[in-house]
Amino acid sequence: PRLSHLDASGAARMVDVSAKPATERVAVAAGVVRMAPETLALVVAGNLKKGDVLGAARIAGIMAAKRTSDLIPLCHPLMLQSVDVAIEPDAALPGLRVTATAKLIGTTGVEMEALTAVSVACLTIYDMAKAVDRGMIVTDIRLVSKSGGRSGDWRADGA
Amino acid sequence: PRLSHLDASGAARMVDVSAKPATERVAVAAGVVRMAPETLALVVAGNLKKGDVLGAARIAGIMAAKRTSDLIPLCHPLMLQSVDVAIEPDAALPGLRVTATAKLIGTTGVEMEALTAVSVACLTIYDMAKAVDRGMIVTDIRLVSKSGGRSGDWRADGA
Amino acid sequence: PRLSHLDASGAARMVDVSAKPATERVAVAAGVVRMAPETLALVVAGNLKKGDVLGAARIAGIMAAKRTSDLIPLCHPLMLQSVDVAIEPDAALPGLRVTATAKLIGTTGVEMEALTAVSVACLTIYDMAKAVDRGMIVTDIRLVSKSGGRSGDWRADGA
Amino acid sequence: PRLSHLDASGAARMVDVSAKPATERVAVAAGVVRMAPETLALVVAGNLKKGDVLGAARIAGIMAAKRTSDLIPLCHPLMLQSVDVAIEPDAALPGLRVTATAKLIGTTGVEMEALTAVSVACLTIYDMAKAVDRGMIVTDIRLVSKSGGRSGDWRADGA
Amino acid sequence: PRLSHLDASGAARMVDVSAKPATERVAVAAGVVRMAPETLALVVAGNLKKGDVLGAARIAGIMAAKRTSDLIPLCHPLMLQSVDVAIEPDAALPGLRVTATAKLIGTTGVEMEALTAVSVACLTIYDMAKAVDRGMIVTDIRLVSKSGGRSGDWRADGA
Amino acid sequence: PRLSHLDASGAARMVDVSAKPATERVAVAAGVVRMAPETLALVVAGNLKKGDVLGAARIAGIMAAKRTSDLIPLCHPLMLQSVDVAIEPDAALPGLRVTATAKLIGTTGVEMEALTAVSVACLTIYDMAKAVDRGMIVTDIRLVSKSGGRSGDWRADGA
Repeated sequence: PRLSHLDASGAARMVDVSAKPATERVAVAAGVVRMAPETLALVVAGNLKKGDVLGAARIAGIMAAKRTSDLIPLCHPLMLQSVDVAIEPDAALPGLRVTATAKLIGTTGVEMEALTAVSVACLTIYDMAKAVDRGMIVTDIRLVSKSGGRSGDWRADGA
Repeated sequence: PRLSHLDASGAARMVDVSAKPATERVAVAAGVVRMAPETLALVVAGNLKKGDVLGAARIAGIMAAKRTSDLIPLCHPLMLQSVDVAIEPDAALPGLRVTATAKLIGTTGVEMEALTAVSVACLTIYDMAKAVDRGMIVTDIRLVSKSGGRSGDWRADGA
Repeated sequence: PRLSHLDASGAARMVDVSAKPATERVAVAAGVVRMAPETLALVVAGNLKKGDVLGAARIAGIMAAKRTSDLIPLCHPLMLQSVDVAIEPDAALPGLRVTATAKLIGTTGVEMEALTAVSVACLTIYDMAKAVDRGMIVTDIRLVSKSGGRSGDWRADGA
Repeated sequence: PRLSHLDASGAARMVDVSAKPATERVAVAAGVVRMAPETLALVVAGNLKKGDVLGAARIAGIMAAKRTSDLIPLCHPLMLQSVDVAIEPDAALPGLRVTATAKLIGTTGVEMEALTAVSVACLTIYDMAKAVDRGMIVTDIRLVSKSGGRSGDWRADGA
Repeated sequence: PRLSHLDASGAARMVDVSAKPATERVAVAAGVVRMAPETLALVVAGNLKKGDVLGAARIAGIMAAKRTSDLIPLCHPLMLQSVDVAIEPDAALPGLRVTATAKLIGTTGVEMEALTAVSVACLTIYDMAKAVDRGMIVTDIRLVSKSGGRSGDWRADGA
Repeated sequence: PRLSHLDASGAARMVDVSAKPATERVAVAAGVVRMAPETLALVVAGNLKKGDVLGAARIAGIMAAKRTSDLIPLCHPLMLQSVDVAIEPDAALPGLRVTATAKLIGTTGVEMEALTAVSVACLTIYDMAKAVDRGMIVTDIRLVSKSGGRSGDWRADGA
């Protein structure tokens, strides 16, 4: 096997996707922000009132997904047809679970778009709560599933 | 305690930092990309040849740090005076350890800049190796230490 | 009726447009910058010489239209096939009338692109003339007409 | 009087602000989205549930303020120290009133940042409600007041 | 002949490409950074160790190609399917030769994307070596060849 | 001598400028677009009418200067206090001469900002005239002079 983003001499390149057929691509990614239980309580309380912590994180995640090719050097620009970011509190962590779903009819996968949405949504949560809890950890960011494309469907173990 | 990014009515806002003194701020953040040992071997081999996997991830992390206020809704635009991203393989994970250091003489902290650099460097590694290993996990992204500012120095437990 | 950008729980989302057919979409938007007659005279005089006030506003509007999905959280990225911005003085306002036309063969409408072009062109005029007239008003920004798409053609009353 | 953004030959230029002293600059801008009363009811109802319409518009306005110099050709890049966007329903319009306040300690005014925040917040409201009401009008965008700088304080008539 | 980016009245516009058929477009551009022989030696030595000078320039060129429509006012946004940047030392200049290849299946040419990649890669080399050699010159940036589109294939004289 | 953008191990880094004093920095850069005499005649004729070719190139150059740190990986974000782009026809080339002047009171030089303004202005000219002349060459982009900073003043040979 060889890393597809390196050419024969090892130099970075954008993979040529022009010969690939346009199919429906869906990718789901997930991640977690672990925090102190008191922090989670504050975030959830803020959310109950006007929703701006989780609302801002969702908006930030969606906007970041659209800018993935600006951030990740070898990602292709593409016309995302849908991005959805969901954030749920989980007292057992304690913390917040972030899930993003990206969809495209096109010639490249949208895994990076879903992962970028999750990462930036998590960072936004960190930013908004950091004044009360600098020890939060953004963790377990992973692809949950993808469908479409030549490599076919994929699902993370246990997902 | 109250989340500083929410006003009294719960609406999101940028915190007013105009009354803060300009001091030297340094923040160090870290994170990890876990991967199969075969993937790590490929990345390290690519690196030995021309360095483009880790080189691209370092560049992507530095560039992302400079765009933090474009990505995180309530972050202040600022004039970063230094960003450094270091990436080291760790066979025990197995995977790569990413560390970013951001520095500013200014009125706001640079924690989000360091965390954004780490996150985007990790995502870039994922992107470049995903064709051989979709099961990689970006994890344990956290602030290691910060210095400067009214809230003073801070260091993560065990760091 | 329901706001299409909110899901059943009220959370913001990008509408999924992947099932829509690609058709030709055209949107025309308009707006006005009202100003003192002396200001209008200065702008028109500048324009007669080298055209940079209106030229800069046209360029700014066109460039902004291309970045609509970067600015408006739930807008889809798309490949605009044409944007045109026209600016005409109107002594009766007194002020300038700005009209933008956006065109796409695609699965989403381009109303927001036309409206964003008008808004940023108006703001650019304000910026270039504000040293002589802070009381200018950007007003009456509206969709004039749209064609294409499932919802069919639409034309503003009286347009 | 002469337009400060044109040089003696009429060519557009960024005004040189390097000789100006750094002072505290505050600008307040306002604008309105007029809509059918049924649309306003839907937006307010959405807001009561989870706040995402107005929350998204506030976030979009804040983020746009930070990108003003990317959008308006001759605006200086600057380090905004605070941006606040407030949105209130007004049944008498009927519609929504948007107000933005921008603050900087620096050598340039922040009028354009406040006006850009208002404009993009209004456009975001339009976007999120346009499926039920294409006839909304974004109107009456104006500077309400500014303070700081050599030209001193300014307040709109009647404001 | 008439400049296609000006309308009948001389105003700048984006050319309407909606009626053009989607075909495979390839453009190759090239350019040169001339420098003192000692500077070239330092760059090549840096490259032999870890490759970051040329690696960073390649990444910067690729990322800039993806943002061409953000930089060049009348360029269409498009979904580049491949960008490749190659940099070779040439002791006879002395300096570095930069070549970029851009590819798209679409309705517009990708000449500007290839030229932008070359320009920004050259500027990045200048930036990284300027502390030792301010007299470097970025020169001879030109289109080498293009294929596809209604105007057919084109090749620079002597290329 | 050593390339300042590489650390001891050869990895790319942003140079730490936090210990440098803020002084006035001015950089002047220049470049040329060579073209067929008929192309120059068309551009100049367009300019006589409404100025949009050269006006658009000036605006594009100014806007690009403000985004230099987004394009060049290791450039520091900074608050440019002035950018000026001048474009003059030169029948002897034949072609256009582009000059950019950037100014900052700060801790880093603005050479890259001036060079980026020149490069993007030249590319914009190429874009607007390429339909009639694909053989244009962007050439001789160089720093003309710089002042301010620890390394002091510098002037190109013969400038």
